[in-house]
Amino acid sequence: MNNISALKRYQIAKVYRRDNPSKGRYREFYQCDFDIAGQYELMEPDFEVVRVLTELLNELSIGDYEIKLNHRKLLDGMLEICGIPSEKFRTVCSSIDKLDKQTFEHVKKELIEDKGLTSEIAERIGAFVKKRGPPLEILSELTSEGSQFLGNNEAVVALDELKILFTALDKSKCLNRVVFDLSLARGLDYYTGVIFEAVFKGTTQVGSIAAGGRYDNLVGMFSAKAVPAVGVSLGIERVFTIMEQLEKDRNQVIRATETQVLVAILGKGLTLAAELVSELWDAKISAEFGLTKRIMNHITRAKQTGIPWMVIEGESELQDGVVKLKSIETSKEEVFRRDKIVEELQRRLGIN
Amino acid sequence: MNNISALKRYQIAKVYRRDNPSKGRYREFYQCDFDIAGQYELMEPDFEVVRVLTELLNELSIGDYEIKLNHRKLLDGMLEICGIPSEKFRTVCSSIDKLDKQTFEHVKKELIEDKGLTSEIAERIGAFVKKRGPPLEILSELTSEGSQFLGNNEAVVALDELKILFTALDKSKCLNRVVFDLSLARGLDYYTGVIFEAVFKGTTQVGSIAAGGRYDNLVGMFSAKAVPAVGVSLGIERVFTIMEQLEKDRNQVIRATETQVLVAILGKGLTLAAELVSELWDAKISAEFGLTKRIMNHITRAKQTGIPWMVIEGESELQDGVVKLKSIETSKEEVFRRDKIVEELQRRLGIN
Repeated sequence: MNNISALKRYQIAKVYRRDNPSKGRYREFYQCDFDIAGQYELMEPDFEVVRVLTELLNELSIGDYEIKLNHRKLLDGMLEICGIPSEKFRTVCSSIDKLDKQTFEHVKKELIEDKGLTSEIAERIGAFVKKRGPPLEILSELTSEGSQFLGNNEAVVALDELKILFTALDKSKCLNRVVFDLSLARGLDYYTGVIFEAVFKGTTQVGSIAAGGRYDNLVGMFSAKAVPAVGVSLGIERVFTIMEQLEKDRNQVIRATETQVLVAILGKGLTLAAELVSELWDAKISAEFGLTKRIMNHITRAKQTGIPWMVIEGESELQDGVVKLKSIETSKEEVFRRDKIVEELQRRLGIN
Repeated sequence: MNNISALKRYQIAKVYRRDNPSKGRYREFYQCDFDIAGQYELMEPDFEVVRVLTELLNELSIGDYEIKLNHRKLLDGMLEICGIPSEKFRTVCSSIDKLDKQTFEHVKKELIEDKGLTSEIAERIGAFVKKRGPPLEILSELTSEGSQFLGNNEAVVALDELKILFTALDKSKCLNRVVFDLSLARGLDYYTGVIFEAVFKGTTQVGSIAAGGRYDNLVGMFSAKAVPAVGVSLGIERVFTIMEQLEKDRNQVIRATETQVLVAILGKGLTLAAELVSELWDAKISAEFGLTKRIMNHITRAKQTGIPWMVIEGESELQDGVVKLKSIETSKEEVFRRDKIVEELQRRLGIN
């Protein structure tokens, strides 16, 4: 750990999971991480991580989303209140975690048959995990007089922390994106505090696209000292899945490149192409070039990759000192003087 | 290989080398690659790769550089002309490759003592590898009447290709960056055609910062069919080494962040901080926040990370509905109404 005890870091990189991934997920994938490690004021980094997550999802412009949020200590307190022995907390949590995909009846069956709970205890859990809604409302309910949570130490710690976090997020004008959800458990063992999961509310079913939480004991496993930390990870491929669907919905071609112009030289004229395409590149125009006598090959290439413009130079154009400018959308061809084409393209593409 | 037989790709990613790296080099490092694979017209992708390399190095603005360029078939032809048996080509090349760091006398000793060449043959090599200069000039010399290269098949193929490449690069106005250098051999076995290496000409000694060439047989080793290819790799760390030196030379602090404003809350006011820093973030101002009563801790943090501005909110400012704006450079403090500070910062930072 290079003896660093505090840092904020982001990373966009490939990660690997020993996992049997479901549809649209892979063992190797790109992840966008943001983490804060080190000693800070209570909930200071937790606030920043959730706020950064809302900024990220807002900037992506992929539609409406919500951030489900809960607290591991509140979950533990809840299970204690329900009368579940502490050694069963994690396994019961992993059943609760399925509530986003399964009905409570399914989960209840698992709790009784596989996890050995009584029907009564399972029902008690059921009553708690139904609670979800605007954070300050749910928080007020859980801390109102007579709430069972007020008699549980773990739960009180969690509720105090959540109050600080929700107030800060409210002042930061992003609490409207957060849903306090007592059924959120998160599969991973290492979380110790706030946990959260962002769910896209559009039509493309990708499940959660980002998730995170506080993991105060994880870094210490690899280091001489404990380093508290909180972080979030966004799955890039899931974002792409949503973006691709949005583009399909709008009947847009999904383009693999941003190329604006295909320089089509009708023949083996590398020298001609080099001169023309370099002028375009120097003028900050995104351009490719191709060398083949068959004009249809050039047109097919432009159509397949969604390049909107072609600059065509064949033997007759070369002799006349001109080039043809072809719009792929309209098929219209116009002739320009060779020494005016860069200027013309800059004008049409709004580059100066 | 997913049955793809043609592609252009770029990648910026970590790569790994089983190597004992010299100063400023590591076994794990970031590399920026650009490669073109597939069947194209003669020298079409070779031209594009070298042109892209010049664009890259120009855009980086790290000073003057040159691209040493040679051709593996020309090297082989040269060694054949010198009377070296073909099984010794690669090992002789690896000696020649040291000429950028060692004198010819050193290399000659190695050629004779370790590689078993006669002194006469080593001298013949020495005469050839001294040739370096403007590409079209050297090319013209090697192809002029009486040149030994014209009697060697491999060399003739190479010279024909180089003529096409140099003409295209000349039309692309980047041939002035290229030096045709017969001593360039490149250590790697897999190159089959054009080879090149970009060398930074500034004061920071990092050796080559980018290199590449044609490798027509490499992809075929992992695939049913041969896929000709040409590519270039740029070492990011070496570019950073040069950039850091340039900034030191200009007496600039090397900043790890681009943060413009530190929001300094004198106390444990996460709520206060959340509100103020979020307004700055929403206004596209790069900002961090810190919570501690000790103003000197905030100032030290700003100085260490090179943050130019501090917005200070303590108890008295809070009561008066104001904040202090402090310039780290001049230490000057000004008081602004709390509801005017975002606008004021936008004005000073040129953000609208």
